[in-house]
Amino acid sequence: MTSESVKPASNLYMGVDVGGTTVNTAVIDESGRVITKEQIDTLAHQGSEAVLDRICASADALIKRVEAEGRLMAIGVALPGIVHMDRGVSLFLTNFPGNWPEVPVAAFFLQRTGLPTYIMNDARAATWGESRFGAGRGAHNMAMLTLGTGIGGGLVINDDLYFGTRGWAGEIGHITVELHGPRCACGNYGCVEALASGPAISAAAMKAIRQGFATKMRDMVSGDLNLVTPEIVASAAEAGDVVALEIMEQTGHYIGTAIAAVLLIFNPELVVIGGGVAKAGRLLFEPIRRVADIRSSLFIEPMGGAKIVPAELGEDAGAIGAAAWAMRKTRVAGPGPTP
Amino acid sequence: MTSESVKPASNLYMGVDVGGTTVNTAVIDESGRVITKEQIDTLAHQGSEAVLDRICASADALIKRVEAEGRLMAIGVALPGIVHMDRGVSLFLTNFPGNWPEVPVAAFFLQRTGLPTYIMNDARAATWGESRFGAGRGAHNMAMLTLGTGIGGGLVINDDLYFGTRGWAGEIGHITVELHGPRCACGNYGCVEALASGPAISAAAMKAIRQGFATKMRDMVSGDLNLVTPEIVASAAEAGDVVALEIMEQTGHYIGTAIAAVLLIFNPELVVIGGGVAKAGRLLFEPIRRVADIRSSLFIEPMGGAKIVPAELGEDAGAIGAAAWAMRKTRVAGPGPTP
Repeated sequence: MTSESVKPASNLYMGVDVGGTTVNTAVIDESGRVITKEQIDTLAHQGSEAVLDRICASADALIKRVEAEGRLMAIGVALPGIVHMDRGVSLFLTNFPGNWPEVPVAAFFLQRTGLPTYIMNDARAATWGESRFGAGRGAHNMAMLTLGTGIGGGLVINDDLYFGTRGWAGEIGHITVELHGPRCACGNYGCVEALASGPAISAAAMKAIRQGFATKMRDMVSGDLNLVTPEIVASAAEAGDVVALEIMEQTGHYIGTAIAAVLLIFNPELVVIGGGVAKAGRLLFEPIRRVADIRSSLFIEPMGGAKIVPAELGEDAGAIGAAAWAMRKTRVAGPGPTP
Repeated sequence: MTSESVKPASNLYMGVDVGGTTVNTAVIDESGRVITKEQIDTLAHQGSEAVLDRICASADALIKRVEAEGRLMAIGVALPGIVHMDRGVSLFLTNFPGNWPEVPVAAFFLQRTGLPTYIMNDARAATWGESRFGAGRGAHNMAMLTLGTGIGGGLVINDDLYFGTRGWAGEIGHITVELHGPRCACGNYGCVEALASGPAISAAAMKAIRQGFATKMRDMVSGDLNLVTPEIVASAAEAGDVVALEIMEQTGHYIGTAIAAVLLIFNPELVVIGGGVAKAGRLLFEPIRRVADIRSSLFIEPMGGAKIVPAELGEDAGAIGAAAWAMRKTRVAGPGPTP
């Protein structure tokens, strides 16, 4: 960003990241600058219509708020699950009551706001956000992983988001890393998500506490297992707790194994890791990098020349990415009434 | 191909597939028709210069043989290992004595034949061959696996061969499928190549025979373990031998797990499987398809809409693909003296 004054009629884009507990909305200009943002509760139990209604009410308020800043061109909506982008409908949102089959999300937004609306998977939105305005700037080919309650992913190939034949490419979280591993929410066994997601990290800590292992995590939660989170584990590990360190090491081993598959298959120049669990930092990135390197030994250059780096956009990645995707679609399609 | 007479001045391309034991050379026209082909022994123990010298002598003979058919425009050379395509040199050929570091293969051919020469990895060549003229015709996004002494692979993305940042994309054979699996030639443990390659299949059969299991494979090789091959195992399995069937099932399970990772990461419309081991057919493809489906359960459509099919070009895939790649490079670069 330079210090020049903003053009009076900037083109603006809104991104809406619909998560399991909160909805993050951001309005950005063409340089990726966040003009304004807002967070509301999802309250998914109310059902798709009520949820979308409240999001659109919040979007309306934001639209008014940025009127002086420029012209809002389009909206991008990121959803936590499988969607049909061309038809603008959700197909299967894993953790939402009823799973939102065939909910016409894009049409709902278009009708309420008059703005062309593009929907996409939330991890793909975060990938696009990091690619354009975050840790992935300048990388032609990159993969992203989002580590949280689930493990999502996305690919950028030749400077564009890559969706594959059905729009489902980038599902790095469901790579099998342990043939005989635990059942995953997806139906498979031994997915990296089943072994290294936030709940898997927490469960490993709960088990260690219940087993009576000597760990300061017990005191950190005052003996209440309900209070165990990946942040507790990371913070105990940072303080040198051996049990917590072993959990971080094991988690990094699983994630590094999945990333090695990504490196071997598509030889990116960059792997960006985001999501709440990634805040653990060095304690997680060190085993991830070590194992990803060992398990892509074939390459004569470590990891085929790829770097593994933390994401930069934090919890705004999804909203910024969805907005950036709406920008990309608008530039291709031209401004118009329908997506 | 139609029955129209061939144009007098067709553009022709030569492909050379340098394997561990034989070198397959083919000359094709722009429709992919094989004008002529030849096979010679590699005799890799003679060293790179002697090997390249004999290949070029054979190429010279072929060039003369096709003079009446058209104009030879360029040569593609497929090599079994890691190469630097832009510089035209081999970097590491795993199974060749000395590993051919920095051997200027493209310059050698250019000097001897006067034709621009493009080098590439052999599995990527086979991928391109199947994509243009084999089982992959019409697929915009496909992956290929070649099952043999090693397990190679390649990707076609948006109708073009995809190489990744360093040119090494497509190394499907080195995906970890068993965290604690056996050591692989690449240095990693538990790669699908270490568990499901031709030698792994043979070794599983040798072990069963040595263990005294009831299997007709013992009689098929007259008790001589030197005669055990993947073909013996496939043929015993076809005849209902339970031990051989279990080996095929286990092999298919490992390959299917690796393919699931490919499906999840890049959601292709097609996976083509070639190489000698793939001749086992149904007995291998059935477990491969079943496991690839289970291990990509996330998709709401089986395997994300992908099909898994056998290759069509047989042992000519590498040579035809290398020739087709030379054609593609010539069309981009225009005919000229250097690659």
